[in-house]
Amino acid sequence: MSVKEKSTIVLFSGDMDKAIAAFIIANGAAAYDHEVTIFFTFWGLNALRKDELVPTKKGFLERMFGKMMPRGVNKMGLSKMNFGGMGPKMIKHLMKKHNVLTLPQLIELAQEQGVKLVACTMTMDLLGLQKEELLNGIDYAGVGAYLGDATDAKVNLFI
Amino acid sequence: MSVKEKSTIVLFSGDMDKAIAAFIIANGAAAYDHEVTIFFTFWGLNALRKDELVPTKKGFLERMFGKMMPRGVNKMGLSKMNFGGMGPKMIKHLMKKHNVLTLPQLIELAQEQGVKLVACTMTMDLLGLQKEELLNGIDYAGVGAYLGDATDAKVNLFI
Amino acid sequence: MSVKEKSTIVLFSGDMDKAIAAFIIANGAAAYDHEVTIFFTFWGLNALRKDELVPTKKGFLERMFGKMMPRGVNKMGLSKMNFGGMGPKMIKHLMKKHNVLTLPQLIELAQEQGVKLVACTMTMDLLGLQKEELLNGIDYAGVGAYLGDATDAKVNLFI
Repeated sequence: MSVKEKSTIVLFSGDMDKAIAAFIIANGAAAYDHEVTIFFTFWGLNALRKDELVPTKKGFLERMFGKMMPRGVNKMGLSKMNFGGMGPKMIKHLMKKHNVLTLPQLIELAQEQGVKLVACTMTMDLLGLQKEELLNGIDYAGVGAYLGDATDAKVNLFI
Repeated sequence: MSVKEKSTIVLFSGDMDKAIAAFIIANGAAAYDHEVTIFFTFWGLNALRKDELVPTKKGFLERMFGKMMPRGVNKMGLSKMNFGGMGPKMIKHLMKKHNVLTLPQLIELAQEQGVKLVACTMTMDLLGLQKEELLNGIDYAGVGAYLGDATDAKVNLFI
Repeated sequence: MSVKEKSTIVLFSGDMDKAIAAFIIANGAAAYDHEVTIFFTFWGLNALRKDELVPTKKGFLERMFGKMMPRGVNKMGLSKMNFGGMGPKMIKHLMKKHNVLTLPQLIELAQEQGVKLVACTMTMDLLGLQKEELLNGIDYAGVGAYLGDATDAKVNLFI
């Protein structure tokens, strides 16, 4: 009985292009039969947000952050050449043209392949994000759980 | 007698939020009894600067860089939603509200836990930063020493 | 007969300072006799572009991206303190003054030391970059090949 290789990715960035890179690497590793965990922290949590407005009770600052941060991957910008939102449209167009899976499809594939998507509970608190606002079927944990996975893993990336 | 696990982080970024992530992971790993090294290079060196002005002799460009770069973690900006300095204030307020340690406290805790803080001597030269300007109790080394640590480590991140 | 240690770097960023860090680490690891691979994806591919204009046939969006992205490391900007192009000039001046190899020299040294430079074929497609536009002597592969290298490696970084 062989033991599976493990890989972990910390997705800190809230940029669409970096999220695409994270999910392409994660899906690739899962296809190679790695046990894969993506740990979403800080702005990376926005990739897990539902795109509809979920009514919640929050403090003032948390409400402001909630409003200003993108709700889900379709509203995220690029780390380079964003051009006030034109860049992401261009990249999405190019991904379609070249038959690359879209980011929502990459997330769905990751969940189907058993990639563990973990929301960092400490930064959820900090930014005022609540479970109801995030995608279904994800896990919640702190840095300790991440380190447990990372210590056993062969490939650990911070994106 | 068991051998300690090792972890290393390269802190390249000069953003407050990324420095927070680096120190939270480093302190978590130290709490799990890893031997942890943070290697500060390029803009990440600013996290090690004392917040008072230290008089030094420098060339013109080095003096300019010294003036324009933030002196210490309290003057660093956010990678996202900086809003001309409002963002860092908001994040600091939220960290206090949610009982997260501040960045200076996280650095102090790291030093207490024996996390090795190493300033990259090559980029210190390049940016004209001198030992007198950096926190006490840190180490100085080059990329070779970093690679020695990283080759033995389980978790290696570039932040 | 000893087996060589391996190291991999994903260079996602198109910033000059991050490319410098990637090549300094890669050259350091190669000097310590590691087998080193740098996998260039997204904006990182620009570090591999020739600096002259290479005539190619492309779709409209691909041509736009090709025009707007920097052709080679000498045209790349800094992640911080870019100042509309003054920052890179200042850094280059400081690197010369402090006898640090320039980025083109670092790339040449990497190739001499046998560092494998791999262009990500999927993002080449996406951004419309063609082999004729990239440096000679590099490899072409997808995420699968990267993961094969990374799974065997000790040090894996995402820059």
